[in-house]
Amino acid sequence: MARLVKKFGGTSVADIDRIQAVAQRVKRARAEGDQVAVVVSAMAGVTNQLVGYANTISPLNDPREYDVVVASGEQVTAGLLAMALQQQGVPARSWLGWQIRFRTDDAHGKARISGVDDGELERSLAAGEVPVVAGFQGVTADNRITTLGRGGSDTTAVALAAALKADECQIYTDVDGVYTTDPRIVAKARKLATITFEEMLEMASVGAKVLQTRAVELAMKYGVRMQVLSSFDESPGTFVVGEEEVVEHELVSGVTYSRDEAKISLLRVADRPGVAAGIFGPLAEASINVDMIVQNVSASGDTTDLTFTVSEADLERAVDVIRRNREDIGYGDLLFDPNVVKVSVIGVGMRSHAGIASQMFRALAERGINIQVITTSEIKVSVLIDEAYTELAVRALHTAYGLDTR
Amino acid sequence: MARLVKKFGGTSVADIDRIQAVAQRVKRARAEGDQVAVVVSAMAGVTNQLVGYANTISPLNDPREYDVVVASGEQVTAGLLAMALQQQGVPARSWLGWQIRFRTDDAHGKARISGVDDGELERSLAAGEVPVVAGFQGVTADNRITTLGRGGSDTTAVALAAALKADECQIYTDVDGVYTTDPRIVAKARKLATITFEEMLEMASVGAKVLQTRAVELAMKYGVRMQVLSSFDESPGTFVVGEEEVVEHELVSGVTYSRDEAKISLLRVADRPGVAAGIFGPLAEASINVDMIVQNVSASGDTTDLTFTVSEADLERAVDVIRRNREDIGYGDLLFDPNVVKVSVIGVGMRSHAGIASQMFRALAERGINIQVITTSEIKVSVLIDEAYTELAVRALHTAYGLDTR
Repeated sequence: MARLVKKFGGTSVADIDRIQAVAQRVKRARAEGDQVAVVVSAMAGVTNQLVGYANTISPLNDPREYDVVVASGEQVTAGLLAMALQQQGVPARSWLGWQIRFRTDDAHGKARISGVDDGELERSLAAGEVPVVAGFQGVTADNRITTLGRGGSDTTAVALAAALKADECQIYTDVDGVYTTDPRIVAKARKLATITFEEMLEMASVGAKVLQTRAVELAMKYGVRMQVLSSFDESPGTFVVGEEEVVEHELVSGVTYSRDEAKISLLRVADRPGVAAGIFGPLAEASINVDMIVQNVSASGDTTDLTFTVSEADLERAVDVIRRNREDIGYGDLLFDPNVVKVSVIGVGMRSHAGIASQMFRALAERGINIQVITTSEIKVSVLIDEAYTELAVRALHTAYGLDTR
Repeated sequence: MARLVKKFGGTSVADIDRIQAVAQRVKRARAEGDQVAVVVSAMAGVTNQLVGYANTISPLNDPREYDVVVASGEQVTAGLLAMALQQQGVPARSWLGWQIRFRTDDAHGKARISGVDDGELERSLAAGEVPVVAGFQGVTADNRITTLGRGGSDTTAVALAAALKADECQIYTDVDGVYTTDPRIVAKARKLATITFEEMLEMASVGAKVLQTRAVELAMKYGVRMQVLSSFDESPGTFVVGEEEVVEHELVSGVTYSRDEAKISLLRVADRPGVAAGIFGPLAEASINVDMIVQNVSASGDTTDLTFTVSEADLERAVDVIRRNREDIGYGDLLFDPNVVKVSVIGVGMRSHAGIASQMFRALAERGINIQVITTSEIKVSVLIDEAYTELAVRALHTAYGLDTR
């Protein structure tokens, strides 16, 4: 008997028929002797609708109220799936974030989990029940609803798998695994049988929307074995595991892109110690994540230009924060551009092989694609380019690293 | 300075524009010096959609999960209205049933309020904030979400007004007051300036959907002065007050009808003591309200026929309960019919005037309408008739009692 946490994303619970199908799948797993806890997302489209309402009222709305509004989507699915399971003879009950006490900090809209009270869920499992947990949501110490950020249900699932010491955390989605790149862009993309946490992490962080970054981080930290698989067929998916489980690495295992990027440039910033802190401190206080950062060496030595990226959703707030701190920071001009894309190549094989980056720059240069910003990590090289070149760049790199199906 | 509880129904918060308009109205009331707490329903159509989902999965779904699903609608509106108020410069925050601790029993789907912890709301009001309370919902002692039944947000508003000792509970809706009958059926219907709690109660109990029965009961019990008014214009509505405030009564102040009725007949029931308890006990345990009851005198003396009504929504469950108790009850046949309507005439003037009922039977007989069941109370006469005759019957009675606009 294995203990499984099964997480079903928005498209897997998009309507009542699909919710019934999920209930069937959970029932089959139990018939095979497995103990199952379920985590659900909002029905596809619901979260976007709710976010749309909130942003219509004000793009700078109160994140505490935003969380009250958007957390309702998962609540609905959890109740409906519990009903559907009961209807099929499987004892089940729904659990909301505040009922479990899925404890988080108070960074509303992107809260971090501080603890999960697993006592009630353990009792529920011991009683032969399927706990159906509303993903994406938690509760602060003073009883306010929080949400974990887009895709946060994955994080809920991993945190739950860790708390319940589950054998596997299965992420059911509308794709059947992790691909070398987006198959909608590159027809020759291949499904990977396994991928390491580190690679998955880099993929998630650069926009491969299969798994949320923090979910993978958490899985790596607690050694939670994950599987990404389709809720629409029965084929095995992609296992996400520790590096020691993977025998042979390719140099590059994936090419990814993220359109959810916006570039902000501050021109003629005083080139003195502490100026970076003056910019990024207030952004951090506003819980805005900054990704790529480049600072140009200034010719005169007095001022410098500074460019960085934030997610498109944070652009308006980020610009607002910087303008409010203009005097402290001291800059000439503020420019911003949401029409950029970050393209990355990823692979743990890079650790032992030089030349991956230059191969990338060459492939892009051959297509006449201008690179605006470059960042590298141990197992990833990323470039920021004009959004219009997304497909061209991804296809070129997929071919250049020999990833096309043979 | 008056302390007001303002409740806005589904059509008043049907979309973002209307939510903004509600925020404006609340802002104006505060500008006039009033202290305001708000109660909101789900956006129009949302609750029906959620109920539809639940019933698609199973009409006999778990009422605990049903409550988890449907309570989400009010949660969304509360968050959005709090945002809209903040956007207009009015400090505000949303409160869900479990956050206030709007305590109820565990009769899920139609829970009764057992207490309201007003401490946090008093602090919120004292701090100059507008508390925006999600209507329709509460929480049990073991932290499960409950709902108060259809239209339960009115009850939330009155309970809140009582707990906060508000000067008035204003129920904003899509009609501008209480009419002598449904203006959609009778063009000559008149708006009433005042109506007594007792009359309103009878009207609500027989389907005048302006206010929920329990809201009026609660208002009467705690002496909460109510006003029903339109959220779309500024005209005064109908005051719902104690009988002592009304100077001159008409004989009949309203004609109402309820299509949400279903008739159940048990034929050849053993005519012995305890049989009624055998039938209605299990229905009560299943939290099914029974309304009209008639028992025919049996010719033989051995058996009797028994007819009663339940709400259409409860019909399937009621039939199920009775069939499961068939052996205990002992009946020949079970018949049921959802195609019935209850038509009632209401007025505190009836107390001091005979002949109201016979006037009703005569008016219906003249139109060839067959009466299936009759019940009377101190200030009401109700008949159950074929649903097809609804409009004909209501118009005939409105004219017969001199209620048509002159």
